[in-house]
Amino acid sequence: MANRVTGPEIDTLIQLLAKLPGLGPRSARRAALHLIKKKDQLLLPLARAAAEAADKVSECVKCGNVDTANPCTICTDPRRDTGTIVVVEDVADLWALERANAVNSLYHVLGGTLSPLDGVGPEDLSIDKLIDRASRLKSVGGKAELILAVNATVEGQTTAHYITDRLEGLDVKVTRLAHGVPVGGELDYLDEGTLTAAIKSRSDF
Amino acid sequence: MANRVTGPEIDTLIQLLAKLPGLGPRSARRAALHLIKKKDQLLLPLARAAAEAADKVSECVKCGNVDTANPCTICTDPRRDTGTIVVVEDVADLWALERANAVNSLYHVLGGTLSPLDGVGPEDLSIDKLIDRASRLKSVGGKAELILAVNATVEGQTTAHYITDRLEGLDVKVTRLAHGVPVGGELDYLDEGTLTAAIKSRSDF
Repeated sequence: MANRVTGPEIDTLIQLLAKLPGLGPRSARRAALHLIKKKDQLLLPLARAAAEAADKVSECVKCGNVDTANPCTICTDPRRDTGTIVVVEDVADLWALERANAVNSLYHVLGGTLSPLDGVGPEDLSIDKLIDRASRLKSVGGKAELILAVNATVEGQTTAHYITDRLEGLDVKVTRLAHGVPVGGELDYLDEGTLTAAIKSRSDF
Repeated sequence: MANRVTGPEIDTLIQLLAKLPGLGPRSARRAALHLIKKKDQLLLPLARAAAEAADKVSECVKCGNVDTANPCTICTDPRRDTGTIVVVEDVADLWALERANAVNSLYHVLGGTLSPLDGVGPEDLSIDKLIDRASRLKSVGGKAELILAVNATVEGQTTAHYITDRLEGLDVKVTRLAHGVPVGGELDYLDEGTLTAAIKSRSDF
C-alpha cells in the first residue's frame, strides 16, 4: 500500500522493522510511525545507534560473544575465573546468565545446536574451538571445569552429549545445569519430566 | 547488565528499541542481537533507512499525514476527489483506510481525540485547521462531504460530536462510518452495542 501514499523511505523502514523478531507487518508499521513522530527523540538516535553498533560491534575471536572490544570484555576481564568456561548456545543465553549474575567465569558461544535434520553438523558450530580451549584450560586451584549451559531441549542435550564425547581424555570436569522447579514456579503447571527431575535431585531442607 | 559485558553502543540500541510499541526490554534485546548478527543485511540498512526517513519525512502542512513530500502525495494527487475529506484520529488510521482502498478522497489527521481528563482540548488537535478546510471545501458535482472516520470509542465519538457542532452553518454534509458486524466476524463474539447497531442499520438482502 505504502507506495501509493508515502515515500519509499518509510516503506523501507517498515520492511526492515518487520524483519525483527517479535514484530510483524502491523506492529512494524506502528513502530515506524512512532519513530517518525518522535524524530528527534527516537528516529535520529536509532539511526546513529544502529550505525555506531554496526561500526564497532564484532564477534569475539575467543568466545563468540558480541562486543565493541575484541577479544570481548569478559575474555579480558582479570577478575574472571579463567579455569571455568560456561558453554551456551547463543549470545542471548550468555547475556541472560550475566544479567542473573549467575557465574563469574568465561563463556563459549556455540552458535546453535546440532541438528542433523536441518543440516547443522559439528563443523557449523564452534565446537573445535571449544575443544581447543578446553585442552588448554588450567584452573588456579582445583580442577578446570566446563559447564554445559545448553537449553534443556532434545537438540541442546544432543549437543551436550556430543561435546562430552569429544572431551574424553582431557583433564576437565564437565557439568550441566540442574533440572528442577523454576523459582516461583507452580508444580501444577510443570511437565512430568521436570517434576521427576526435581524429585530425583531433591536436597535436604 | 549490559554495561558489564557489552559496549555502550549495544546498550543504547537496546534502550531505543525498547521504546518501540510492541517491544519490551526482553524482545528489544532479542531484536538488537538479531540486528547485530545480521549486520550487513539488517543493521546497516536500518541505520541508513532511519537516517533517510528522519531527513526526508515530515508532517503534511495540509492534512497532517506523514510523507516525504510536503504537501503530501495524497493532497497533491490530481485523481483524488477533493470534495470529500475523511477525518481520522491518527496517521495509522489513514494508512489503514488506504490499504483497504476504501475511499479515494483527501484526509485530515486530527492527531488524537478530545480527552478532558488527560488535558487534551480542541486546541491540541488540528480542529481549527479542519474547520478552515471544511469552509473552503467545494465539490465538483454534488455536495462537499466530511466523513468522520474516528474510532468507535467514547473519546472518538465525543470528538466527532464536537466537530459536528463546530461545523454548524457550513454547507458541508457530515457523515460517519457505519457500525455493524465486522466482515468475517461471528455474532457470538460481538458486544451488544455492535449487534444492536447491526440490527438497526440492517439492509435489504
